[in-house]
Amino acid sequence: MGKEKGDAKSGFQLKVPKGTKDWEGRDMVIRDKIFSSITEVFKRHGAVTIDTPVFELKEILSGKYGEDSKLIYDLADQGGELCSLRYDLTVPFARWLAMNSSVQSIKRYHIAKVYRRDQPAMTKGRMREFYQCDFDIAGVYDPMLPDAEILRITCEIFHSLGWDGKFTIKINHRKILDGIFEVCGVPTDKIRTISSAVDKLDKSPWEEVRREMTDEKGLDPAVADLIGEYVVQKGSKELLEKLLANEKLIANASAKQGLDDMALLFTYLESFSVLQNISLDMSLARGLDYYTGVIYEVVTEGSAPSSTDKQKKPKKSADGEEDRSNDPTVGVGSVAAGGRYDNLVSMFSGKQQIPCVGISFGVDRIFSITKQRLAAAASAAPIRTNEVDVFVMAFGGKGFDGLLPQRMDIAKRLWDAGIKAEFSWKVKPKLPQQFKAAEANGVPFAIILGDEELAAGKCKIKEMGLPEGHAEKEGVMIELADLVEEVKKRIEASADTSLSASLSGLNVEQAAQQLS
Amino acid sequence: MGKEKGDAKSGFQLKVPKGTKDWEGRDMVIRDKIFSSITEVFKRHGAVTIDTPVFELKEILSGKYGEDSKLIYDLADQGGELCSLRYDLTVPFARWLAMNSSVQSIKRYHIAKVYRRDQPAMTKGRMREFYQCDFDIAGVYDPMLPDAEILRITCEIFHSLGWDGKFTIKINHRKILDGIFEVCGVPTDKIRTISSAVDKLDKSPWEEVRREMTDEKGLDPAVADLIGEYVVQKGSKELLEKLLANEKLIANASAKQGLDDMALLFTYLESFSVLQNISLDMSLARGLDYYTGVIYEVVTEGSAPSSTDKQKKPKKSADGEEDRSNDPTVGVGSVAAGGRYDNLVSMFSGKQQIPCVGISFGVDRIFSITKQRLAAAASAAPIRTNEVDVFVMAFGGKGFDGLLPQRMDIAKRLWDAGIKAEFSWKVKPKLPQQFKAAEANGVPFAIILGDEELAAGKCKIKEMGLPEGHAEKEGVMIELADLVEEVKKRIEASADTSLSASLSGLNVEQAAQQLS
Repeated sequence: MGKEKGDAKSGFQLKVPKGTKDWEGRDMVIRDKIFSSITEVFKRHGAVTIDTPVFELKEILSGKYGEDSKLIYDLADQGGELCSLRYDLTVPFARWLAMNSSVQSIKRYHIAKVYRRDQPAMTKGRMREFYQCDFDIAGVYDPMLPDAEILRITCEIFHSLGWDGKFTIKINHRKILDGIFEVCGVPTDKIRTISSAVDKLDKSPWEEVRREMTDEKGLDPAVADLIGEYVVQKGSKELLEKLLANEKLIANASAKQGLDDMALLFTYLESFSVLQNISLDMSLARGLDYYTGVIYEVVTEGSAPSSTDKQKKPKKSADGEEDRSNDPTVGVGSVAAGGRYDNLVSMFSGKQQIPCVGISFGVDRIFSITKQRLAAAASAAPIRTNEVDVFVMAFGGKGFDGLLPQRMDIAKRLWDAGIKAEFSWKVKPKLPQQFKAAEANGVPFAIILGDEELAAGKCKIKEMGLPEGHAEKEGVMIELADLVEEVKKRIEASADTSLSASLSGLNVEQAAQQLS
Repeated sequence: MGKEKGDAKSGFQLKVPKGTKDWEGRDMVIRDKIFSSITEVFKRHGAVTIDTPVFELKEILSGKYGEDSKLIYDLADQGGELCSLRYDLTVPFARWLAMNSSVQSIKRYHIAKVYRRDQPAMTKGRMREFYQCDFDIAGVYDPMLPDAEILRITCEIFHSLGWDGKFTIKINHRKILDGIFEVCGVPTDKIRTISSAVDKLDKSPWEEVRREMTDEKGLDPAVADLIGEYVVQKGSKELLEKLLANEKLIANASAKQGLDDMALLFTYLESFSVLQNISLDMSLARGLDYYTGVIYEVVTEGSAPSSTDKQKKPKKSADGEEDRSNDPTVGVGSVAAGGRYDNLVSMFSGKQQIPCVGISFGVDRIFSITKQRLAAAASAAPIRTNEVDVFVMAFGGKGFDGLLPQRMDIAKRLWDAGIKAEFSWKVKPKLPQQFKAAEANGVPFAIILGDEELAAGKCKIKEMGLPEGHAEKEGVMIELADLVEEVKKRIEASADTSLSASLSGLNVEQAAQQLS
């Protein structure tokens, strides 16, 4: 395709803005399939969706993103209110909750584009316009129940995408982490910055993180070594029990509350049969300041860098944040992440405090992995870009008039029955042209009309792509009166070779590693 | 709800930008249902979707909208490319076709938000951020076949929305109209401006349009009277035959070509069984300059003003274009409109000429009418904002522990079977609270757990809202082993009382007239 070419006529470049793309064809079909899989799970758990404007008042977004505020797109001042394109879906949700004070509880999902004036890295899914897919539960409930359901939902989603056994939910708790820092002797004013250093352990070795703590951030090396003993630990119930048995830790109020929460959460995760997907990981810290409780990140094979690459220093991107997806020494990074944030809504509405817990799915990363996976699976059914089930054709010998009114009539009958059908928009199409058009889109069935057959009240139905020697290779003659019934019967019987079938059970590891 | 209130804490107004809104609750459900009805029809005809960025390079949009260009939202100049929010979906589609020169034919639909810095009139669906729903066919085909299929698709869409017999497609042809103007003696340089005057006949009487032609636009009154004889005509096949028999008209090359096109189109519309929805209307002219062939507008009862109001002069809105939806003297206006535009793509790509024909559905107007219609239909099923089918409850006497693990286990089994289910996020919920939560969302079934029943391997299933005296009013005891099967059976049996059923067969006239 001749993309991004200059235009002789008008003298400007024919392209989309930097960091944006048109979605079309196969990519669009794969993306839609991912969105509908995810949405189906949200709805299964009673979620509703909310659609907020693509731009917000500038002052709604200001003061929410720290240094990253410089990445916000502003609208031009053309008179009237000053507005900015949304940077994420969390702040608009908190703004909506604050505005709608009668809503005291909600499970909402929102799949929409957000905007960041970042240095794009298109092939790795780092864009200026990209999709976020957020699910959040707001409201006061008994402890850890909504948190547990979010993790159950996360597992159902990756199950529906065919990632069974290929993903891990790393989990930690801000209060456990803060307790550890206090117990180890980190000064209160250094807790957040030391927490940021710990968050880098998924891509940097401990030695380097320790150096950042001591050399850059002035932490006592002895304190750093104490932290080191805690944060390398990961595991499941046995680790939780070990921490609960740690008297020094349990004596700290913050750590105790975090560990009690975690113990309750583990009970619930066991009831939901998802504990096997969970890894309690003391090195998980999460960047954003607003988390107040449990935090989690979903990783897949390929999320982490290979061990030899771990020694290399990740390079900084223009915005000062490490660009994990773009750095050859790191993996694709997490494919979903979130946590509990009980204080964000009150930034908009001082009176009102609505506790929230949520997760954001990195649908562009999930898309990239899925696309690679489908490409790697040579045996998978081809992806059709449209959904037509029947191509209505005509053929005839000398004096053939194209049977256009008859083709239109048959198409009309199929449409009336809700069947997806096309026919050639030519008065007298040749039969090979009609087959070629049907094959180009992978249409599974042809209805073939001929003068003699129509005179006898019949037509031929042919399943496309049957192997040589198959009894129905040349098609089957059916009564026109039974047309709709015969077509529906055959479509149902052939339904499971679609994309939805081919999304499951493929090699996600291989795809993820190709990306990393 | 406490909307648009000031925020004591941060000192700024908590609101969405002027002319935008949050979509939520019932409105969101109705809107989604409309979108999915429309999308289903597009897919039935083999359409694919394309998603373009929400902003385009500024120069892509410039020079496309004439005077209305002042309504375009620009992004602030923060360095790099200058961009603007899209104003419609047609120009991005033409830009995409010009960029992807390998695509010589496509049927594409696109449902997305567009942006216009207009004076908003929120309750009538006139917004600064609003949805458009476009369907276009690009490519070279035998004459009038794609045009006919677009009109068939339009009828299927209003059929699927339950508007049968409640809408009319007004149709005309630019070449017929131009031929009429030439035959009547309109000077070539006045044809477009006289055409614009004719376009006002749906809301102004002929006398006023004639006055505009003669007094404002300097047309010879005798010529205006000749035009008047043509443009008041509307009808069906008999009008077409009358025009085809008009020797003066047929002697004009443009009129002849338009009438031949129209005759062929009518044949096709008859094959598609949609001719009864079509009104050949010589007063339909359409505002946009880029149409080159057949043009059409879909009106519903309420689209036109009442005859007494027709005398009043419509007031101009800020953009100089009549605001039909906001003017009390006019109806809701058209709910869909479009036509053939064979030259637009070449504005981007001089080399390449791709003929196109399309239609744009006014989904905000369709939404407003549908919402009124549902409100007017007191007998209609209530609209549920979530889709949960089962609420899992527990009850017990003294020493009742809430049966939380059991409720979680049952919910898990239902989710595993793809069934939409919820339970209370309380450790020990009271039974009335659980019923209240289920009723608030209109959940159709309750599964009720009790210690004794569980010990016997049983639970109770209760259909909510059964009338007093119904045999199953108090619920039915079932085996836990048959849980999923029993639930699925009952959900299927109760499935047709949903919104999709209530969207059909209601009083669209009444709703449309309330809006006008």
